[in-house]
Amino acid sequence: MSESSLPETTDVLAAAARIASHATVTPILRSRELDALAGARLYFKGEHLQRGGAFKFRGACNAVWALDEAQARRGVVTHSSGNHGAALALAARSRGIPCHVVVPEGAVAAKLANIARHGATLWRCAPTQAAREAECARVQQETGATLVHPYTDARVIAGQGTATLELLRQVEAPLDLLVAPVGGGGLASGSLLALRQAAPACALVLAEPAGAADTARSLHAGQRQVDFVPDTLCDGLRGALGAPNFALLNGSASVVTVDDAATVAAMRLLWQVLKQVVEPSSAVALAAVLAQPQRFAGRNVGVILSGGNVDLDALPWMAA
Amino acid sequence: MSESSLPETTDVLAAAARIASHATVTPILRSRELDALAGARLYFKGEHLQRGGAFKFRGACNAVWALDEAQARRGVVTHSSGNHGAALALAARSRGIPCHVVVPEGAVAAKLANIARHGATLWRCAPTQAAREAECARVQQETGATLVHPYTDARVIAGQGTATLELLRQVEAPLDLLVAPVGGGGLASGSLLALRQAAPACALVLAEPAGAADTARSLHAGQRQVDFVPDTLCDGLRGALGAPNFALLNGSASVVTVDDAATVAAMRLLWQVLKQVVEPSSAVALAAVLAQPQRFAGRNVGVILSGGNVDLDALPWMAA
Repeated sequence: MSESSLPETTDVLAAAARIASHATVTPILRSRELDALAGARLYFKGEHLQRGGAFKFRGACNAVWALDEAQARRGVVTHSSGNHGAALALAARSRGIPCHVVVPEGAVAAKLANIARHGATLWRCAPTQAAREAECARVQQETGATLVHPYTDARVIAGQGTATLELLRQVEAPLDLLVAPVGGGGLASGSLLALRQAAPACALVLAEPAGAADTARSLHAGQRQVDFVPDTLCDGLRGALGAPNFALLNGSASVVTVDDAATVAAMRLLWQVLKQVVEPSSAVALAAVLAQPQRFAGRNVGVILSGGNVDLDALPWMAA
Repeated sequence: MSESSLPETTDVLAAAARIASHATVTPILRSRELDALAGARLYFKGEHLQRGGAFKFRGACNAVWALDEAQARRGVVTHSSGNHGAALALAARSRGIPCHVVVPEGAVAAKLANIARHGATLWRCAPTQAAREAECARVQQETGATLVHPYTDARVIAGQGTATLELLRQVEAPLDLLVAPVGGGGLASGSLLALRQAAPACALVLAEPAGAADTARSLHAGQRQVDFVPDTLCDGLRGALGAPNFALLNGSASVVTVDDAATVAAMRLLWQVLKQVVEPSSAVALAAVLAQPQRFAGRNVGVILSGGNVDLDALPWMAA
């Protein structure tokens, strides 16, 4: 498995072994009240309780610990709007190597603080894809650091899949459906590999903000649709589906699109009923379940709560 | 064990057996980051994840299921600023009996909604102790319902103690200290009984808002000091320490008083780092630990997160 090839189902097993001594085994959360509301048995995978506050630590950790000694010594670099940056910083620190993170201006303050706290060097750039890539390339050239892309890197995808692998081992009943948020597609494609490995009968449903619904359009068209301007408060899901992620998901997952109002309502439910601080990019998964009750009725449904890094001074319902 | 006598340590064991099929076994939550901040090993008991969103369900459930058939048929009644009311409603529903709750005007909206949702009849009264008791007496007389006082009832005290009993069974290491919030003293005195039963070497530290510090004064003076006007945002901790609660705690616990600013800071930490939605009346316990670092340094410390019923539209840091 290299950075550029597509990961395979067994790579998820290898990743699980590689990160076992570093990552947290996150709990499954249940709620009678949310089950009643959905008419289904919901098994929430609490990845907001993962180190760094998001599932992203799994992929970053797998990428960092897969480097050989010479590579590792030169460190790692990435561009990230937040959770992946914090995760890579934590992962790099777990191996004692340097980490550089290129962050766009305008990123969520709580997420930047999270990255800096874990010892990474922050490099700010304009909030465009081109500016990020240029700054990343400059840092790579100057330091010899290895680029760890937030969602196209094969090691990252395999690592993200370990959340679903773990979930499947934790629930007592076989899951009928698994719902995961989709942005760049690292979690989504990793989850697909995990299901193929351990629960081939379980269907993968991706939850996507209506204001960044390129995955829905891409899977519908059978080719990547990357020409869009994201408009959603789900800051973790604004990126376009990556090419390897599309290659893995095409024909193997369905997408439910959710508008931000439904996501905010689901987020409030998760805070009020489940008592969990999750970010909008996580709540979109519960919103998808509640948007299509007939699809999930009576089923065992895994729902990945992907992260909980929220700016407590700027909650979405404060603006309303 | 009756309503008026003092409960004993074995009553906590009996309560644990009585409520076992109704109450949730709540998880222990850990955080490397909060451990580092406190310089101690903190074992958070997640009672905000209890049914009804607070430990109060334990005591209410024990009281409801301890009634004989004839008593049960006539139902239960209480006055409560919130969590106990919701808990009693839920407990009554678990036995299929009527529940009446007298609530003061000005109570937190989210808590009233919680009570009504669980099927109780709400009776509003003026926000004074006298008005509450008068309205309670009226409902008792009209319905024959049994009064279940929020914190002086022996069955309630024994039930609250089961949270600590459970915590002691869940942690791998013996606890050196247990920190619990104190208001009326139901949780505090129940916790003391549980420690006497299962961990006599563990010290009980009570966390109390500086704006309602009657327990600190009472234990210092060796007699109840009930003449005070509470001034704290910890709405669950405004009541005066009850007489039986004082009788149990006197000479057997110490108190750390915490001002509201420290409690709000601790609440933000619990939300931001532990990703848990807890109310100010819970956060006071972590605030107490952080206020006296030398006391807890290097120790195994249980911290009871007592509840998570928060009005998400009126978070304390929004006002700042």
